[in-house]
Amino acid sequence: MSTHKIMFLPHQREITVQEGENLIRAAMEAGVHVNASCGGEGVCGKCRVIVEAGEVEGGLSEKLGQDDIEKGYRQACLAKVKSDLVVRIPIESVVDAGALNRQATPRRTARIREINLDELKEKGLFVPPVEKKHLKLPEPTAQDNLPDVSRLVGYLKLKHDEHHLEVDLSVIRKIPHVLREKNFEVTATLARPVREDSKTRIINVQPGDTTDRNYAIAMDIGTTTIYGQVLDLKTGRVLSQYGDFNGQISYGEDVISRIVYSEKPGGLEKLNQVVIETINQVIGQIVKGSKIDPDEISTITLAGNTTMTQLMLNVDSRHIRRSPYVPAATLYPPVRAADLGMALGDHVTALVYPAVSSYVGGDIVAGVMGSGIYRTDELTLYMDIGTNAEIVIGNKEWLACAACSAGPAFEGGGIKLGMRAQKGAIEDFSIDPVTLEPMNITIGSVRPKGICGSGLITAVATMFEMDIIDSLGKFNREIKTSRIRQTEGIYEYVLAWKDETQIDRDVVLTEPDIDNLIRAKGAMYSGCMTLLEEVGLSAKDIDRIILAGGFGSYVDLEKAMIIGLLPETDSDKVTFIGNGSLMGARMSSLTNRIRRDVVEVTKKMTNFELSETKSYMDNYVAALFLPHTDLNQFPKLKARRQARKNNGPIEPE
Amino acid sequence: MSTHKIMFLPHQREITVQEGENLIRAAMEAGVHVNASCGGEGVCGKCRVIVEAGEVEGGLSEKLGQDDIEKGYRQACLAKVKSDLVVRIPIESVVDAGALNRQATPRRTARIREINLDELKEKGLFVPPVEKKHLKLPEPTAQDNLPDVSRLVGYLKLKHDEHHLEVDLSVIRKIPHVLREKNFEVTATLARPVREDSKTRIINVQPGDTTDRNYAIAMDIGTTTIYGQVLDLKTGRVLSQYGDFNGQISYGEDVISRIVYSEKPGGLEKLNQVVIETINQVIGQIVKGSKIDPDEISTITLAGNTTMTQLMLNVDSRHIRRSPYVPAATLYPPVRAADLGMALGDHVTALVYPAVSSYVGGDIVAGVMGSGIYRTDELTLYMDIGTNAEIVIGNKEWLACAACSAGPAFEGGGIKLGMRAQKGAIEDFSIDPVTLEPMNITIGSVRPKGICGSGLITAVATMFEMDIIDSLGKFNREIKTSRIRQTEGIYEYVLAWKDETQIDRDVVLTEPDIDNLIRAKGAMYSGCMTLLEEVGLSAKDIDRIILAGGFGSYVDLEKAMIIGLLPETDSDKVTFIGNGSLMGARMSSLTNRIRRDVVEVTKKMTNFELSETKSYMDNYVAALFLPHTDLNQFPKLKARRQARKNNGPIEPE
Repeated sequence: MSTHKIMFLPHQREITVQEGENLIRAAMEAGVHVNASCGGEGVCGKCRVIVEAGEVEGGLSEKLGQDDIEKGYRQACLAKVKSDLVVRIPIESVVDAGALNRQATPRRTARIREINLDELKEKGLFVPPVEKKHLKLPEPTAQDNLPDVSRLVGYLKLKHDEHHLEVDLSVIRKIPHVLREKNFEVTATLARPVREDSKTRIINVQPGDTTDRNYAIAMDIGTTTIYGQVLDLKTGRVLSQYGDFNGQISYGEDVISRIVYSEKPGGLEKLNQVVIETINQVIGQIVKGSKIDPDEISTITLAGNTTMTQLMLNVDSRHIRRSPYVPAATLYPPVRAADLGMALGDHVTALVYPAVSSYVGGDIVAGVMGSGIYRTDELTLYMDIGTNAEIVIGNKEWLACAACSAGPAFEGGGIKLGMRAQKGAIEDFSIDPVTLEPMNITIGSVRPKGICGSGLITAVATMFEMDIIDSLGKFNREIKTSRIRQTEGIYEYVLAWKDETQIDRDVVLTEPDIDNLIRAKGAMYSGCMTLLEEVGLSAKDIDRIILAGGFGSYVDLEKAMIIGLLPETDSDKVTFIGNGSLMGARMSSLTNRIRRDVVEVTKKMTNFELSETKSYMDNYVAALFLPHTDLNQFPKLKARRQARKNNGPIEPE
Repeated sequence: MSTHKIMFLPHQREITVQEGENLIRAAMEAGVHVNASCGGEGVCGKCRVIVEAGEVEGGLSEKLGQDDIEKGYRQACLAKVKSDLVVRIPIESVVDAGALNRQATPRRTARIREINLDELKEKGLFVPPVEKKHLKLPEPTAQDNLPDVSRLVGYLKLKHDEHHLEVDLSVIRKIPHVLREKNFEVTATLARPVREDSKTRIINVQPGDTTDRNYAIAMDIGTTTIYGQVLDLKTGRVLSQYGDFNGQISYGEDVISRIVYSEKPGGLEKLNQVVIETINQVIGQIVKGSKIDPDEISTITLAGNTTMTQLMLNVDSRHIRRSPYVPAATLYPPVRAADLGMALGDHVTALVYPAVSSYVGGDIVAGVMGSGIYRTDELTLYMDIGTNAEIVIGNKEWLACAACSAGPAFEGGGIKLGMRAQKGAIEDFSIDPVTLEPMNITIGSVRPKGICGSGLITAVATMFEMDIIDSLGKFNREIKTSRIRQTEGIYEYVLAWKDETQIDRDVVLTEPDIDNLIRAKGAMYSGCMTLLEEVGLSAKDIDRIILAGGFGSYVDLEKAMIIGLLPETDSDKVTFIGNGSLMGARMSSLTNRIRRDVVEVTKKMTNFELSETKSYMDNYVAALFLPHTDLNQFPKLKARRQARKNNGPIEPE
């Protein structure tokens, strides 16, 4: 697909976008404010821009008069980029250049990193834990009437140098029929052991040659969402993927409330049954999506936090939530998927990622494996921000990890109009420094319903940078605008007026919301700092940051640093791997070596119970500011604020 | 219990018996004929004897007049031995001394051999595959909040030098609860691997100290009968045992008809279900009988022939009955007993004896292991005579084995009034050389219903020794007696007249019955000879014979040699181990070493398909005589016959 350049005026900011990109999103990317209340649905009509050169598709509506249209006015949210453009933002009041400069910086999302299949193959690591062998066995005779299994095993030893083989009962059950279906031409599926000196299991036999069809499932068992992928083990490619809400949500939003439910009579069994149902739905969808024969699936690898893993395995989890927070186990044996209730063939083994502790689970271990922290020299900070938040710091020598009680703010929890990153959530935001009019971008470009984590971070960071809120997260009481008001004694900013929303009331951002965000980011940041201190390092030693979790995909890194969620660093040091848990599950499905390494890695991962770590509370309290009590930890931001102070305060309209 | 001597007159034969022994059984043991048609029930009144000295209990009935009683007459079948006795058998016709000498020889049953627990213990082999360890784990604290499983595993490593441990999911499921029930005082059940370098599995955890309660089940899955034992793994003792008919009997008497049934739609599943039901009945009975808590059972070891094993594992067995007779497998993986449908705890693993071929199954391998052939220097002939018949010849260096198509004659199959060794079966027999009146001893001392294997062998051998039947198994046409007659053209001997039986008709032994027995013994004997020839040896090289199978317990060895079922040898070289399959299963339950050795032993057991072995048919045809076409193979019998010939033929009454 072709790309086009857009020059935004009067800002003189240029950006390159894909053909067909929405113009208002392009402006947001470029850090150019355009008033837009309705989230991009086209109904508020505020996002008028003048296309001075080039061609857009759409952008017309009854909100624009014929005159306007002829002058080049378009509604930015309805216009798609078709060529290089020059776009002018009409400045409807007198703004000084300073104010213009105080506009949002261009978006800086993290580079997305994926598994490098070529590298895996080059290094000889692309050896999935299951392998298919096509064999033409000699047919039995009176002189050679070996048992069917011995015939297969003997041939594999003799012709394929396979030793230490063992055979599953399910194979014994089907082998008489399978061998004779195509005159003793068969394909055997071999499951490799973790330790090289252990036995290789023959888990399946199929008539004829099926070596071109060998698939695996990788799955992330999240507290909120369960994601699955069908992988082609010949190429390593993802054939299909699907995510669905974990059916356990009805029994509690977070792991603690799930555990509480599991302690009721029949509760554990219920939660187990419900998560298996969701898993089976996801399996059904991805099998459908990949158009494969489900019998060709050889293995399923699952990663989840410790509670999700235990509930999936029907393991009593009550002690996870009680001091001293003891899980039943952190290493799980391979289990027949069908024994867990999974709708998969008898021969499929479920491989479950090991955990480190009650609150550093298999999802984080999977992220460590998938992202490769455990084999890098660079000091890496890995942050997984989901319903639970976990941090890992380290490299190939050592790994320190901790769970942060960050709470659900990043997923919209505890925020008055907070919501998950779903259609109608404000995910990006800018504010006119003079009029204080907002620019709301919503997921799906529909009228707002609420605000999600990335929108919240951007809104708070933007307002903090413009001194609309102070370092305590309080609105500047001096500003006079209808957007900032008190409702029942609580200060709030109106992101969208009632008639611009889907919910028949104003979408607002309140001071308690900001306070919750500060606590959440404070927990994450102080967790990082505490871990670093425990190993005698500081933030400036960090070579790179890896963000994982659904949340991280759209976060503006600069904004995350402004609020003090991330240590201040070059945004190109930050990469985003998306669902780290799923990535790790996929990695294990493709390279058996991971399964051997992972046990060593979990041993290397030193878990810090933050609540038991002396300095944590001090660090936490110090982090309950925007960005932090110690501005020296954020030197760039400190410099900007210093410069701004010299320019004087912003004048309200 | 005290023993007493009985002197039988006029035979001058003395025998020592237990106090309370039945007098007619004592006479039979001594080889002294007493007319007795009714099997020992006391109704025919023919077994009159005179107690000349000593005391018996009972023996009186209305069949004896007051005069008789005063003279010392008693009914032998109703009299119990209370002291040393002198008992005279009234000779009701003139008999010469020669005829007396031609009476039956005293019974010679094989010495019974059991597992020698003391020897096992002395040799350090009494190490069951499951072991319990009592542990007092440190309780978790904030500084030591290891997962429950890691706490257990770590402690076992540190304090009990247990390494390479793996943990079953069922243990993970119960460990949180179990550890906390008695303040982290627990008993862990460890299942040892077959190979020393493999992992030990932790299969169970229980609160407190349960080390004094560790039990196993040993089971023989016979075509006809399923026997089970509960074993105390602390002492090695059998706490209870029980046998029940295999529910599959309704679907076919022998393995072939079972396989035929299994090929029908749903047939395999039905047979599987039915045998599991019987297994569960047997488990229920032996658990009840032993009064143990079934949760304390740690393991079940099962042995059966290849077809029974496959049907129990729900494995397609159709190719077992079709040339070239290929079983699905001969080595079976350990399986969770509950997965097989067995009514045992989640933690119980079913260990299934490996087989050698389609017709040399795990029952025979178990017999080889249990009887210790595989570690003796002596050349041993092992014969298991049940619904199927198998032979093993060898020692610790080599083992040759074969299945014999002996047919069911030894279990009463194909015999006009044949029956299994149940109540009412004639199990022992003698004949008056002059009057040709029978002496029938039945199981349970009730009126006869039919004749079982040991009775059949004894009857045929006895009549052959008295020239009542010839070496072709035909009745001597010269003898005139109402006992020998033709019915519908078929010669037969009346064992019991209609009014002396339970079945409202005569119990007879026909020429076709004798023919079937000859074929059966011919198959066994020629199997032995063929195996010996294949390894370049002959019958005289055999150091000892081991008989196994329910059948062998009561067989009169001399009689078995007379008909040519066993090679002629000293009867003290013959031992009887009863159910060899069960013995092997028990042995494996007590000493894990067996499980390691057994795979090597099955590799060492060279299977000969007799039907494919050139000389077999010649050997078989030669064996279709009493005892054999080549009398030189039975030198003692040959000498006796020679001597008898010099005395002239027996005169009928």
